[in-house]
Amino acid sequence: MAGYRWDRANDPGAGVPLAVVRATSTADVQSAVRFAARHELAVVPRGAGTGLSGGASALSGCLVVSVERMRAVEIDPATRIAVVEPGALNTEVKAAAAEHGLWYPPDPSSYEICSIGGNVATNAGGLCCVKYGVTSDYVLGMTVVLADGTAVELGGPRLKDAAGLSLTKLFVGSEGTLGIITRVLLRLVPAQRPPCTLVATFASLDDATRTVLDLTRTMRPAMLELMDRTSINAVEDVTMMGLDRTAEAMLVVQSDEPATHGVAEIAEVTAICQANHSTEVFSTDDAETGEAFVVARRMVIPSLERQGSLLLEDVGVPVPQLGALVRGIEAIAEEHVITVAVVAHAGDGNTHPLIVFDASDPDESARAQAAYGQIMDLAIGLGGTITGEHGVGRLKKDWLPAYLGPEAMDLNRRVKAALDPQGILNPGAVF
Amino acid sequence: MAGYRWDRANDPGAGVPLAVVRATSTADVQSAVRFAARHELAVVPRGAGTGLSGGASALSGCLVVSVERMRAVEIDPATRIAVVEPGALNTEVKAAAAEHGLWYPPDPSSYEICSIGGNVATNAGGLCCVKYGVTSDYVLGMTVVLADGTAVELGGPRLKDAAGLSLTKLFVGSEGTLGIITRVLLRLVPAQRPPCTLVATFASLDDATRTVLDLTRTMRPAMLELMDRTSINAVEDVTMMGLDRTAEAMLVVQSDEPATHGVAEIAEVTAICQANHSTEVFSTDDAETGEAFVVARRMVIPSLERQGSLLLEDVGVPVPQLGALVRGIEAIAEEHVITVAVVAHAGDGNTHPLIVFDASDPDESARAQAAYGQIMDLAIGLGGTITGEHGVGRLKKDWLPAYLGPEAMDLNRRVKAALDPQGILNPGAVF
Ligand SMILES: Cc1cc2nc3c(=O)[nH]c(=O)nc-3n(C[C@H](O)[C@H](O)[C@H](O)COP(=O)(O)OP(=O)(O)OC[C@H]3O[C@@H](n4cnc5c(N)ncnc54)[C@H](O)[C@@H]3O)c2cc1C
Ligand SMILES: Cc1cc2nc3c(=O)[nH]c(=O)nc-3n(C[C@H](O)[C@H](O)[C@H](O)COP(=O)(O)OP(=O)(O)OC[C@H]3O[C@@H](n4cnc5c(N)ncnc54)[C@H](O)[C@@H]3O)c2cc1C
Repeated sequence: MAGYRWDRANDPGAGVPLAVVRATSTADVQSAVRFAARHELAVVPRGAGTGLSGGASALSGCLVVSVERMRAVEIDPATRIAVVEPGALNTEVKAAAAEHGLWYPPDPSSYEICSIGGNVATNAGGLCCVKYGVTSDYVLGMTVVLADGTAVELGGPRLKDAAGLSLTKLFVGSEGTLGIITRVLLRLVPAQRPPCTLVATFASLDDATRTVLDLTRTMRPAMLELMDRTSINAVEDVTMMGLDRTAEAMLVVQSDEPATHGVAEIAEVTAICQANHSTEVFSTDDAETGEAFVVARRMVIPSLERQGSLLLEDVGVPVPQLGALVRGIEAIAEEHVITVAVVAHAGDGNTHPLIVFDASDPDESARAQAAYGQIMDLAIGLGGTITGEHGVGRLKKDWLPAYLGPEAMDLNRRVKAALDPQGILNPGAVF
Repeated sequence: MAGYRWDRANDPGAGVPLAVVRATSTADVQSAVRFAARHELAVVPRGAGTGLSGGASALSGCLVVSVERMRAVEIDPATRIAVVEPGALNTEVKAAAAEHGLWYPPDPSSYEICSIGGNVATNAGGLCCVKYGVTSDYVLGMTVVLADGTAVELGGPRLKDAAGLSLTKLFVGSEGTLGIITRVLLRLVPAQRPPCTLVATFASLDDATRTVLDLTRTMRPAMLELMDRTSINAVEDVTMMGLDRTAEAMLVVQSDEPATHGVAEIAEVTAICQANHSTEVFSTDDAETGEAFVVARRMVIPSLERQGSLLLEDVGVPVPQLGALVRGIEAIAEEHVITVAVVAHAGDGNTHPLIVFDASDPDESARAQAAYGQIMDLAIGLGGTITGEHGVGRLKKDWLPAYLGPEAMDLNRRVKAALDPQGILNPGAVF
């Protein structure tokens, strides 16, 4: 049972489930939900458990419904869709699509370990969504088991469908509070072209955030990531790949425009970086060399994990507020005498402040918690959101009413009540 | 009052409204809805009235709430969004964005006469959505007045937001049945590159639909439209532009890839057309010449309107079923001895069978109605939808339960009941 108590958020309030159902079919999930409804048990839907907001953490006495064994992936190249069971990993869908020269774009950093069902339930983002959009943009349909055990088919293998309410999209991002997704139809696109990659370092963080704004105003890079000094140093500690430890920020940018045009686009990016006083710019049209730079970005979380426990934030702001957000986070870190590294899907204005703390030190843990909340308050104050892609789960639900306001919060509750009147689906998450 | 009874579907059941409210603000809309709620009046939200499924046709004694006077458009180039009042025309948003080198992609053929609010309420598609997606993909947030007169703000100027249920997307495509949209935040992208355009004619319709499949399997054209022989001839009658009247089908294809790559992509399209026995292929990288070909496509509806009354269908199928759909429509036309022209957003599998009939001839009108229904049945049988982009409105609601099935239909009703318990918002549309 212990293996099903936590997701990657390590929710301190996680309970011990009454039982774990490892479903192998929609019918299994229906049986489990019907049983739960009859006995008024809480149901916690679970994918791969990589969530970062405690959405899949267990409640005492609940039924965990895990879909990890529902893994089938079928590709229909003529219709250009994937029909996927929810437990399939993101990387498995990508690989199956690639066999047909096709591509499933959404790429959370966790793509090798997270499930498609979890991606759909959280509307997961990632690195390429600055150009290619989030999970929601690729979901054409699904089978979902409702709170009374009914299985409903929504949408289908049609690229456009305006018949009835947009319920497919409503279930995307619903974090297991409206139903359990047991099958997903995903739109695929032709394989991505080999990207050109650029890395630029900046002595000043403000120069880096200004560069982001200059870039997003005129072009659509396929990736636009930012690492702050703490992130750079954490990665350098582990990889010793030669990153500039003195830089206040580093940008990683990719273009997947065709051939010479990709090179030209990266040349434009170079010029914009230089106009904003970058200290060093390196670019390559070799996909493998480029991937090595991206690895630096992907190493941020694993590298920081070696320094202590992590509280992973996910606040997002309108892109012009990115600089103010990152500066504000610095101030919060100073105030609470705690390390906060910032890594960001900068082109979307979506940042991941990573609070590093010693979980065995109650005082430091309290300061980490205080910083966590204050960062959300800061984001709200800047016209931003408390979560850009990880979801509200259990850890952020206290901030949701302040973020949404009473009218929108009430509307959320009305939809939830209409679909789950008993309140058995993932209670305590989001609501 | 007469000017507010019908949209472009000319619903024969349209009634005479009690009054028309021409709102100038969210507060106006709130007052109108509160008044209606108090007096249990039906409210019919109305944009520009170009709808093709009777979603905006009036009910006897209803309150029509028109937003045609709410027209403001503001562009924020740094955040790359448009803040738009719902009555603004699609073309006005495109023009305002273009002033900043930005682009609002969704382009229903009616873009010069339809409103953004109507586009959002119907999740409008268009010609470029084969590459750039539908209206829903560009809506970041909105203000919406609910059935009790409360105004709610959903979403905001953030490219990613995972906080709370996906209510913004739920309201997109809700056809005025859940609330009245009074403000929309739209995502913009950098200006489209000047396209290369290709026109190809085919002696055989099957060759043309096979070409569509071959194209969509490997590439992402920015436009992929099909006209059948009846459409070609109707346009030629009016324009005398020299179209091949003997061709069974014509494709119009655009690439907006950069410079030489666009030319190369169109060369690939040419090769695929020729491999599928096209009788003639013409292509140009001159944007103006290209636009002339697209005009042929846009002229289909106006040209057919000269031949009689039109019933405009909007069925969509999985792309591999496109050929079977068009052949099946031909058979239905023959059976009912009636003219049905087909024009299609072929790359999406979304077709517009246009039924031409003499409205003063009751027998022919009845046959037109019979064909209209049979075409939807055909689409459902092929795994398709009864409406790809126009919405269900009043004319298609009888087919919705058969298409969605009882479980999904029930789910639609539960969401509707939760948000509009009195049932005053656009009664008789969709539900
Ligand atoms: C190192 C690391 C990097 C990450 N990077 C990113 C990133 O770049 N972008 C990003 O968006 N996220 C990222 N994440 C977070 C996480 O991987 C995503 O939220 C992912 O979508 C969760 O998928 P999962 O299968 O692990 O879901 P889980 O953690 O099992 O569940 C997540 C939520 O979805 C619900 N759920 C799961 N499956 C279903 C289902 N079938 N039906 C209904 N509800 C369901 C759960 O109840 C829970 O509320 C990262 C995580 C880690 C550890
Ligand atoms: C020649 C022609 C070509 C067309 N081509 C296309 C095409 O390519 N693609 C396509 O998708 N459509 C097309 N259409 C259909 C039509 O233009 C679209 O459905 C358009 O989105 C309707 O916008 P409107 O402002 O005219 O809405 P209306 O007709 O006024 O209303 C449409 C629906 O939306 C609701 N509504 C309108 N405004 C609001 C609001 N502010 N809040 C809540 N509900 C509201 C109404 O109640 C109604 O149900 C075409 C129409 C014509 C006449």
